[in-house]
Amino acid sequence: MIVCRTKAELKERLAQLRKQDRSVGFVPTMGYLHEGHASLMRQSAAENEATVLSIFVNPLQFGPNEDLDRYPRDEERDLALAEECGADIVFLPSVEEMYPSKPLTSVIVNQVTDRLCGASRPGHFDGVGTVVSKLFHLVQPDRAYFGLKDAQQVAVISQMVDDLNFPVEIVPCSIVREPDGLALSSRNVYLNAEQRRQAVVLSQTLSDAAEWLSEDGMTVERLIARVKVQIAKASESAIDYAELLYYPSLQPPAANAPIRSIGQSIIVALAVKFGGTRLIDNRIFEASEVNGHVQNDDEVEAAPGNRY
Amino acid sequence: MIVCRTKAELKERLAQLRKQDRSVGFVPTMGYLHEGHASLMRQSAAENEATVLSIFVNPLQFGPNEDLDRYPRDEERDLALAEECGADIVFLPSVEEMYPSKPLTSVIVNQVTDRLCGASRPGHFDGVGTVVSKLFHLVQPDRAYFGLKDAQQVAVISQMVDDLNFPVEIVPCSIVREPDGLALSSRNVYLNAEQRRQAVVLSQTLSDAAEWLSEDGMTVERLIARVKVQIAKASESAIDYAELLYYPSLQPPAANAPIRSIGQSIIVALAVKFGGTRLIDNRIFEASEVNGHVQNDDEVEAAPGNRY
Repeated sequence: MIVCRTKAELKERLAQLRKQDRSVGFVPTMGYLHEGHASLMRQSAAENEATVLSIFVNPLQFGPNEDLDRYPRDEERDLALAEECGADIVFLPSVEEMYPSKPLTSVIVNQVTDRLCGASRPGHFDGVGTVVSKLFHLVQPDRAYFGLKDAQQVAVISQMVDDLNFPVEIVPCSIVREPDGLALSSRNVYLNAEQRRQAVVLSQTLSDAAEWLSEDGMTVERLIARVKVQIAKASESAIDYAELLYYPSLQPPAANAPIRSIGQSIIVALAVKFGGTRLIDNRIFEASEVNGHVQNDDEVEAAPGNRY
Repeated sequence: MIVCRTKAELKERLAQLRKQDRSVGFVPTMGYLHEGHASLMRQSAAENEATVLSIFVNPLQFGPNEDLDRYPRDEERDLALAEECGADIVFLPSVEEMYPSKPLTSVIVNQVTDRLCGASRPGHFDGVGTVVSKLFHLVQPDRAYFGLKDAQQVAVISQMVDDLNFPVEIVPCSIVREPDGLALSSRNVYLNAEQRRQAVVLSQTLSDAAEWLSEDGMTVERLIARVKVQIAKASESAIDYAELLYYPSLQPPAANAPIRSIGQSIIVALAVKFGGTRLIDNRIFEASEVNGHVQNDDEVEAAPGNRY
């Protein structure tokens, strides 16, 4: 495994791969890797002849009051995990290497960024779109792997890739969870013991929502109200957002829309603070899961779970 | 020469070139080709093993009151000229092929777009940045050729390529002029005989400005005032802008700055309407041309003309 800290080094190593006509999978991360990242690297290593991992805590996607300065880092452990998961190249640039001067160019995705983290974290997705564009140009991968915990990020990047004709295939990957259901996140390390115990309310509520969805007469607003009540039972929780939206457009159905009449894939997405730590989680439901009855006019029960 | 009207066709043809390891030069245009475009294609053909020309009148870069609908087109003549100049592939997509649905993504370059055509044509460079990003991703050229008549476009695209690490070299190419000095433009065809006669005032004024620059005590505001007076002598002219800026940053020096103390490359840029037709022209002066005396403290006269 080769570690590159400069664009020039990366370019040289990639040129060697391309001479050998090897397909390239790419896993962009902010480091402090966990099993979620590991699953992306393993999938990339299985589907491509070479895998590039990038580790870069991108200042552009942090707001002024966010956790840029205390974002956790552990380069040594990251490199060990990357090697174990089959990465061939790790790109580990400094901020100066990525932004040698103040960037004047932004890649901005509209509409898909109107809600959820796009609304809670103004400018966040402009920073994501811009840095992912840079990384795609530097790595020129055939496939790029993104975890669906950041489902809006997957939607934003897929939209960007389609709109701008980036020659890369975006591969969305399942959320990896702790045994009790908590979605893995580099930020979980911030939680104290009580917050960690309570944080399981996110995944539990999403599982419950999967049941509630198919209730007779369930509407968007009723479901979201029930989700909020359940999360609020965790005493340290403070809800940032809880929304039910079409996926991947991330536009809202009518609040009083009967869920079984929606006829499209939807997402239930949560952002909840525990103390100073903001956690996100979501679950995507295919059209057939939420409205099999209405659409097909038959009585076969919708499949449990979801394809992600 | 192969004509591709779809992205899929283009992709297939380019894959063949790449298998042969041929370097690719790219000339993006809006068609109605003239000797300016021909010079770009010839330079590309000389410097690369394959040349791709694109012809696409990009609706995104036209304002609501601009000339999108009447923009001149002549596909047959364009293809003949492309073949004569050594193009290997012409990409000629429809609007639907380039924008199958409403694009939600924009590539926006700030600062360099604050003045000149960026100020006169709001949104113009967002459209340019977006379509050029798309074309770069579709063609994946080694080099891309742009005419310096659109000097701000060259500055914007160079900034975008640097900021986003596009793997392409931008090659700025000299302005091609009629024998009387008028810069070639697809829009010259709109001019009536009298307007055409008067339009030479742009290039003449730029030549005169080259002399005025080196006058003792010449300042930015004095030079621009003189430029405006001279252009206004053409009875059908209406000045949109006449500015002296640093190049390529396109930021303004102080109005009362003595030009010979500026110490950087500058541009004198003009946009002037003749009837309904808006023409642009410019001249870039290297630092050594405008302030050789001050910087080097010697008496060698700055070279006449400029490197473009």
